[in-house]
Amino acid sequence: MTYNNLIEQIRAKRSFLCVGLDSDRSLLPPHLRCHPNALFLFNQAIIDATAPFCVAYKPNTAFYEAEGANGWKQLSDTVEFIRMYYPDIMIIADAKRGDIGNTAQRYARAFFEEMDVDVITLAPYMGIDSIVPFLNYANRWVAVLALTSNATASDFELQPLANGQPLYKAVIEKCSQRGTKEQLMFVVGATRPQRLAEVREMAPDHFLLVPGVGAQGGSVAEVAKYGMNAQCGLIVNLSRDIIYASSGDDFAFAAGEKAKEVAQEMGALLTDV
Amino acid sequence: MTYNNLIEQIRAKRSFLCVGLDSDRSLLPPHLRCHPNALFLFNQAIIDATAPFCVAYKPNTAFYEAEGANGWKQLSDTVEFIRMYYPDIMIIADAKRGDIGNTAQRYARAFFEEMDVDVITLAPYMGIDSIVPFLNYANRWVAVLALTSNATASDFELQPLANGQPLYKAVIEKCSQRGTKEQLMFVVGATRPQRLAEVREMAPDHFLLVPGVGAQGGSVAEVAKYGMNAQCGLIVNLSRDIIYASSGDDFAFAAGEKAKEVAQEMGALLTDV
Repeated sequence: MTYNNLIEQIRAKRSFLCVGLDSDRSLLPPHLRCHPNALFLFNQAIIDATAPFCVAYKPNTAFYEAEGANGWKQLSDTVEFIRMYYPDIMIIADAKRGDIGNTAQRYARAFFEEMDVDVITLAPYMGIDSIVPFLNYANRWVAVLALTSNATASDFELQPLANGQPLYKAVIEKCSQRGTKEQLMFVVGATRPQRLAEVREMAPDHFLLVPGVGAQGGSVAEVAKYGMNAQCGLIVNLSRDIIYASSGDDFAFAAGEKAKEVAQEMGALLTDV
Repeated sequence: MTYNNLIEQIRAKRSFLCVGLDSDRSLLPPHLRCHPNALFLFNQAIIDATAPFCVAYKPNTAFYEAEGANGWKQLSDTVEFIRMYYPDIMIIADAKRGDIGNTAQRYARAFFEEMDVDVITLAPYMGIDSIVPFLNYANRWVAVLALTSNATASDFELQPLANGQPLYKAVIEKCSQRGTKEQLMFVVGATRPQRLAEVREMAPDHFLLVPGVGAQGGSVAEVAKYGMNAQCGLIVNLSRDIIYASSGDDFAFAAGEKAKEVAQEMGALLTDV
């Protein structure tokens, strides 16, 4: 997916919502829980119900790996399902991988060739070596962790370096020297909205992938206030608030209603885009 | 596996070698390459040949994920094979995961329950939240990336923080406040041997998992000189030098011979252990 495709999607749907597919068997509606492919069946229903209101899906690999090889198969089937029925929607593998050289190339192959997602999230700890091998794929993206939404982002991400710049800004600086806005976005949490404004200043044209709205306390309005640029430039993720909107038989309908509600809020914020 | 079990293994085998199972279909001997389960078959042969000379195996998840769900199955089968036939050997999943809260718990479940490895490597970028959920498992370990062996470790890991301490030392300090020597080790590359001495001073009793020997230029003798403690305290990994010692039909024999040679060098360095 190209940068312009993504902007067109946002304009057409009046939404910059990403639905996080953190699908966990123990939280699924009882009638699905015992099925061997419960995660995939759940995802199908959630996707069909929410697709009109979102521009991206973000399965988190941990939830699938917790079910072993069959979990990986269900992740892969979910990606294939989105590709087949909703080819305009961006697929983000929230994998937070981070390794170098040959190994990074294998991760790129796993996610961009074997699994065919548009974006993979990456952890930058090991340096730019762990990002560059992913940039060789046309129309694929990396979303590099910059400032995450959790409390202990203060342990390292927010630590000032000797020059006074916090680590996450050094990450943004180093990475944006190597990746264009067409291939690189940054993960910045909604829980520290003022920081979004500083990131936006450093990376005016890059998309920001924003977790932390909803259950974690961030708000869409604040994210838009501090992080939006003229092309929107935001993908805001909600997971549990949408996919577990109801734990009953009406889980998919409830997810669709919740996604619609969030998209309406987003649409009202997109007046200039 | 306990701390004492690991030390007993090292004493019994006179070796602190870890064999990295970075098994890549395109590099396997031609007669194996076309088999659907080539990675597993290759691993079985390598393990049978090298088991007398090593104390740990370290499959890197990237190489298995690159083959999709069947790759994950082969990884899982490899772990099961080691558990069944070589129950005293430590299994390290080189996964470099790093996520928080619920998600970290799912990764712990994936690797400690679904897959049953002893150790998982973790990236600390997101803070201690991304380490703690793994510490709730008895006799399981995390190996936290501190100073890796690649050149661009200088991008962030070696960057001094405002107090003058480089980031990787802040990681060691923060993590060793939360994890004991029985549940936490650090990944420190062999390519900057003097740094090993500094890490050893900060973490006198923790095991260090050391990549970067062989193909990447580090030496076992230097690692031992700077990193060894009274109980050895080292697990030194070699991957390609051992598993691809020969690309012919004799690949397993050649891997065994190479592992034996490295173990002999290690044995000579273990005089006081």
